[in-house]
This record gives sequence, C-alpha cells and structure tokens, in this order.
Amino acid sequence: MTRKHISGFSNPTVKYLRSLREKKLRKRAGQFLVEGLRLLEDARVSGYVPRTLVMAEGRDPHPLIEGLEREIEASGGEIITTTPDILSKITGKSNAQSVVGVFDEFDTSLEKLDRSAAKIWLVAQDLRDPGNLGTMLRTGDAVGAGGLILIDDCADPFSAEAVRASMGAVFTQGLARARWDEFIPWLRGGAGQLVAASLRDAVPYRGAAYQSPCFILVGNESQGLPETYEMECDLRVTMPMKGRADSLNAAIAGAVLAYEVLETFDPAAQN
Amino acid sequence: MTRKHISGFSNPTVKYLRSLREKKLRKRAGQFLVEGLRLLEDARVSGYVPRTLVMAEGRDPHPLIEGLEREIEASGGEIITTTPDILSKITGKSNAQSVVGVFDEFDTSLEKLDRSAAKIWLVAQDLRDPGNLGTMLRTGDAVGAGGLILIDDCADPFSAEAVRASMGAVFTQGLARARWDEFIPWLRGGAGQLVAASLRDAVPYRGAAYQSPCFILVGNESQGLPETYEMECDLRVTMPMKGRADSLNAAIAGAVLAYEVLETFDPAAQN
Repeated sequence: MTRKHISGFSNPTVKYLRSLREKKLRKRAGQFLVEGLRLLEDARVSGYVPRTLVMAEGRDPHPLIEGLEREIEASGGEIITTTPDILSKITGKSNAQSVVGVFDEFDTSLEKLDRSAAKIWLVAQDLRDPGNLGTMLRTGDAVGAGGLILIDDCADPFSAEAVRASMGAVFTQGLARARWDEFIPWLRGGAGQLVAASLRDAVPYRGAAYQSPCFILVGNESQGLPETYEMECDLRVTMPMKGRADSLNAAIAGAVLAYEVLETFDPAAQN
Repeated sequence: MTRKHISGFSNPTVKYLRSLREKKLRKRAGQFLVEGLRLLEDARVSGYVPRTLVMAEGRDPHPLIEGLEREIEASGGEIITTTPDILSKITGKSNAQSVVGVFDEFDTSLEKLDRSAAKIWLVAQDLRDPGNLGTMLRTGDAVGAGGLILIDDCADPFSAEAVRASMGAVFTQGLARARWDEFIPWLRGGAGQLVAASLRDAVPYRGAAYQSPCFILVGNESQGLPETYEMECDLRVTMPMKGRADSLNAAIAGAVLAYEVLETFDPAAQN
C-alpha cells in the first residue's frame, strides 16, 4: 500500500481525480469516483475495493474507514490524504468528512452477462437521466434482477449521480452497454422474452404471460421506444393510465412491470 | 391584455422573473414559472392560464402560442417579448424558442382537498428531491389519484424541476402541504386508510386489505418514515426485497403500491 499526502491544488493527481467527474475524461481513464462511506461500504461488501481512497487530513476516525484501509493495504492500493479544500475540489462538495474511492470501470460487454443467472433483466434504451438509471439499478437489486442492459445512448452508469441513485446496486447488478443491433442478436442467441410497456397491440400488464428470463424494456424519457423496437418485443403490455397523461416515468414503469413479473414467477416472494 | 417589450437586463420585471427561480423568493411572491410550450399547453388544457407569458422577440409562430395568447387576452394577462439573451437569463437555459409562463401558486391547504373525489391519495413525508416529487404527481395522475399531500419539509412542488418531472400533473392533481400534526387530525376527521411500506409488523403488499380512500404514505429518501409515523398507519405492508438493499426509491415504492391498490379497487382498470 502507498500512503501519500497532497497539499497542492496543482498536483497532477488532484487534476486527474477532478477529471473523473467529467464523462468524457472518465471514459478515457476507465475509472470512476464513489463518494461517501455508505457507498464505499456497499462496494466493499460486494467485493469491490477502491484502487485509491482519498480523504481529508485529520478526518474523524471511523471503524469502516479502518476496515477499508486494511483491504486497500491487502490489495496494493493507495491512500491519499489531502486538505479539506482540495477534497472539496475533487468531490465538488464542501464536506470535510467525506471519503472518495476510485474504482476501475467494469467490463460492460453483453458477453459478460449470464442470462441464466436471473429470471428478470432490466433493459433501458436512450435513458438520459442518470438518476433514473441509478434508480433502475436499485429496483433491479430489489426484484432480484440479474442486471441492467443499456441500449444506444444512455446516461453513464459510472457518473456520480447514477452511482448515488443506485444506492450501491451498481456493485451488485450486472451492467452491459450495447447498440440495439448488437443487443437483439445476443438476445435471440438464447432464451429470453423481450417485454415492453406499449400502447400498440398490447395486453394488460397484470397477469400477462411472462416467461423467464424476462427482459423488461423501457424507452427514452421523452420519446419512449421507437416503434420498430416495440414491434421486436415478444410481449407488449399496457398499464392503466387513468389520468390525462399517457405514460409513466421510465424508471417507474420499469419498476411496476418488474414487480408484476416477479409476482408471476415467484408468488411467495413477499412472504 | 397588456403587451410589453423589455430590452434591458436591469428592468425590474426581469429581476422579478429571475427571482422566481429561487425557492424563498418564489414563496414570497406566490408565483411560479412554467417553461416550455408542452407544459403550458398541459396547464391550459387543465384550465390554467398564465398571468404573464414571456418569449423572445421574433420567435417562430406556433398555433399553440397563438391559442395561449388569445386566452391571456381574455383573462386580462400580460404578454412580454424580450431579447433571446434576457429570456435565457430568466429561464437559465439558452433556448431562444422557449416560452415561459408565470402562474399564481395554488392554495395548498388540506381543507381544499375533497377526499371523496378519489380512491387513492399519495402522501410524502420529508421528500427532498423535486424530481421524486414531480414523478409522484405524474404517477398520481396515472393511477387516478386525487392528489399529493406533502408532509413536513418536502421539496417545493412549484420548483422548475418538480413541475417538469410532473409532466403537467401539477395542474391536474390536488396538492396540499401540512405538518404531520395537522395532517393526522384532518385524516381522522373523515374516512381514510393510511398505508405505508414498512418492515415493522407488516403484511405482504400484494392483496392486502386496502380500503378507499387509501392514503399511501412514503417517507424521506434517506431516513424513511419516523417510527411514530409508521405506527400511526392503519396498514403496514412489505414489498419483496430480494437483493442486498432493504428499500426502494421513495417514488418507486409509492408507484408500485399505488398500482397494487388500484388493482384491488378496480381490477378492470387496465382493460
């Protein structure tokens, strides 16, 4: 383990860590930031130890941090202490008690997913809001999904907002990114029912003929799914819309569907 | 109707409109901003006409804007044209095609709600995220809820983010704000079952004994509900949590519950 103290704003490590807040630079680096002890503990419990841990000098001791330090020591990582001001520059927040971990991004290729590992998978197309994305990961964890597959131009699952909204599920759920024309051949190369909420040629979502593994597809926040994508689905279901609007928030629609599918597969799940 | 052109950044009307982006000043003024033609049209369809409409000079004509202008004319409102730069200052966005309406805030006292008007009501306690709040309004519209009751220190339903996330449901759903010790006497002064997702002394949410009017209570994003609030509920239900986490996003939990309650009351709703 390396221990390092940084006191200068212009230190290249500080610049590097700050750069991880920007999507393009994060992608280039292949690393992302996780802020806060709670999320770092979620990561640790799931078997992920940060490459680097950053905290302010003189931070209050905490048993969880001591545990993290031991794990980083064992894995050959690095612990950096710095000033509260520099820490704020890195996190973008003025909390001197904060702790930040640097993790390697995961391999998000479809081939990494084992579809037989779960009965439910969530799929999002052009989902632009990182909060929605993180919420879908969190919901996936709750329903026992295998993971989230991000189609076309989705928000970055490694952004601070997505990681935070996932409540740690970014470390427990499978995660893949693919274009539609990569996803469909992969899906059709094995078992899998593709289901979407739709108004076109749809059956009531309640008690529909869901089959495992069930891939629940939700579309872009403002456009919904392209018609060709909907028509590729094996099952289109409709949900009651009793008001003026004709759609739900994407993460909400996915969650209501996922709980219905869970009930179909596993009626005793709640007991 | 008044028509006015503003060309100076220091014009007091510009300062006033910009001030409506800040919660404290918005509250003092009792007015809020609604940005974008889609939301303004949602408002109009629901019977709400802006007091003031602001757009850039030379904006492309649009039949919906012409319709809005006629309604504002009829109601004695004001139409302001300004430069694209000043419009950006007001909206905080650089879209010269944008249109902004100024509305009076609604009366959000509990006494305005007619509990017999709907079988489902959503209740949020200390909900801090305006996006979650707006999403709950949108979900309420979808399940035919009567409205959303905001308990204790919630986000401002008249913030731009909440209004946007509501997709116009801020104009169709009832809206009330109250302290817990005002809400409970009001609730107990009439029919109403208070239901919360809980781990304490709870029954499975699926097929639970929901009664109309059903008030579905969700708690703060990070703290959940205080135990005393949970214990005040007439029914505590639990939802399957098959992963590592023990809770859902507040708006997600409310939506999954609301769709279950809707199914209980109205099994044919989706057909």
